[in-house]
Amino acid sequence: MLSPLLERRSVRRFKSKPVSRKLLNVMIRAGQRAPTSCGAQFYSLIEISDVRKRKAIIKITGRNRALESAPVWIFVCCDAVRPAMMFQMLKIDCHLGEITRLIHGLIDASLAAQNMVIAAESLGLSSVFTIYHWKALGEISRLLRLPAGVLPVLLLCIGYPDEKPPLRPRLSTGTIHHENRYRLPTRQMLLRDYIKSNRSLVRMSYFGGDVRDLAQHWHRKFRTEEMVSREKKLRMELRRLGFLPNKL
Amino acid sequence: MLSPLLERRSVRRFKSKPVSRKLLNVMIRAGQRAPTSCGAQFYSLIEISDVRKRKAIIKITGRNRALESAPVWIFVCCDAVRPAMMFQMLKIDCHLGEITRLIHGLIDASLAAQNMVIAAESLGLSSVFTIYHWKALGEISRLLRLPAGVLPVLLLCIGYPDEKPPLRPRLSTGTIHHENRYRLPTRQMLLRDYIKSNRSLVRMSYFGGDVRDLAQHWHRKFRTEEMVSREKKLRMELRRLGFLPNKL
Repeated sequence: MLSPLLERRSVRRFKSKPVSRKLLNVMIRAGQRAPTSCGAQFYSLIEISDVRKRKAIIKITGRNRALESAPVWIFVCCDAVRPAMMFQMLKIDCHLGEITRLIHGLIDASLAAQNMVIAAESLGLSSVFTIYHWKALGEISRLLRLPAGVLPVLLLCIGYPDEKPPLRPRLSTGTIHHENRYRLPTRQMLLRDYIKSNRSLVRMSYFGGDVRDLAQHWHRKFRTEEMVSREKKLRMELRRLGFLPNKL
Repeated sequence: MLSPLLERRSVRRFKSKPVSRKLLNVMIRAGQRAPTSCGAQFYSLIEISDVRKRKAIIKITGRNRALESAPVWIFVCCDAVRPAMMFQMLKIDCHLGEITRLIHGLIDASLAAQNMVIAAESLGLSSVFTIYHWKALGEISRLLRLPAGVLPVLLLCIGYPDEKPPLRPRLSTGTIHHENRYRLPTRQMLLRDYIKSNRSLVRMSYFGGDVRDLAQHWHRKFRTEEMVSREKKLRMELRRLGFLPNKL
């Protein structure tokens, strides 16, 4: 009963076998059953089946195995446009501020996305979330014809798995679980967790290229120089898409 | 296999029967198995068992049946502090900008939270997310001793259900599902969805007090006047908590 939750791995190599419309519809239905703020469903799903569109997206995000092998691509997006249209149609004086859109949208979209992931697992399929498109939100938005107020959050790739990677390590429960108040873990706890995770990832041959350990892996992903400029670009794009105000 | 996904309801009335530590640990483990950006786990869980603390929280959020009856309360929080501590310990030059924290944190926290919800369902338990604390982020943060960089997102209430509400309506799949590009639903589609949802909610006696329909319900939740001031306060608090920059 719990294995779709406890045994899930992100899979990045899929068989070419297509996923039936019937199974896809079950996954989408599962996504829609996720909790949603005030029943408003601040999200939309955009399935990408058009081969030319896929190629254009890969050109923007860069080549990678998950996108290239997955038979199903679904962008899970925050959507504040459809709720606003609904409010207008009903002639109710409602408003969604930019930060409210971002928060409600990200929560609703993520909850629905995770239900789809677990549905896929339960049906013998596998999946991975990719976020490569975040580095080019503007271009992706144009390609998907997104109006301001719609934000592509996760690109969910689904298919029949063609690999079975080991379960990846996680921090120990004591490190993330607090009682009644927040307490930072001690350096010792954190170091122990790091050593354990890193050892396990090295054993799994998780790192590729010239990355030797988890510290280096994180450094590649979050290095200050790049993050500062990425953050700046992100602010600009989110402002343009209506998920950050022009002024704070 | 799919029923924990397809049959989940938000439950707001729980039996007093306690939930065993063993089951709670399974739920937390399921939460940790959710996908997480670069394996960094940008979240923390704060379980609230202290009765005085619970009372203080209810005093802030207002009384409500879910909080008053649930034996388990867990705040699922964005956490950018522990990853930063990890980066510092490893002496890697990494940085998380405010918007990056907010986005990665909200996604990671929501994915983990939804896995916990589905684990609860699979174990015969029920749950509901509450977000009443968002209206008083500052006070809640002080009460939980959250440092800047930790943001309480969802308060997950778990317990044995003492009610079985009907499945709530959702928009039709055609309204939220797009192919290859975004297309707004027609007014007709939206109106049909609205009428169907509203009729079903009225039949379920979903609305209380003087709220008669879904339009009125949404108006209460998102009315312009209140949202404008709430948004302003939200910006201020998120800035203070390190999830929005001081300037855009």
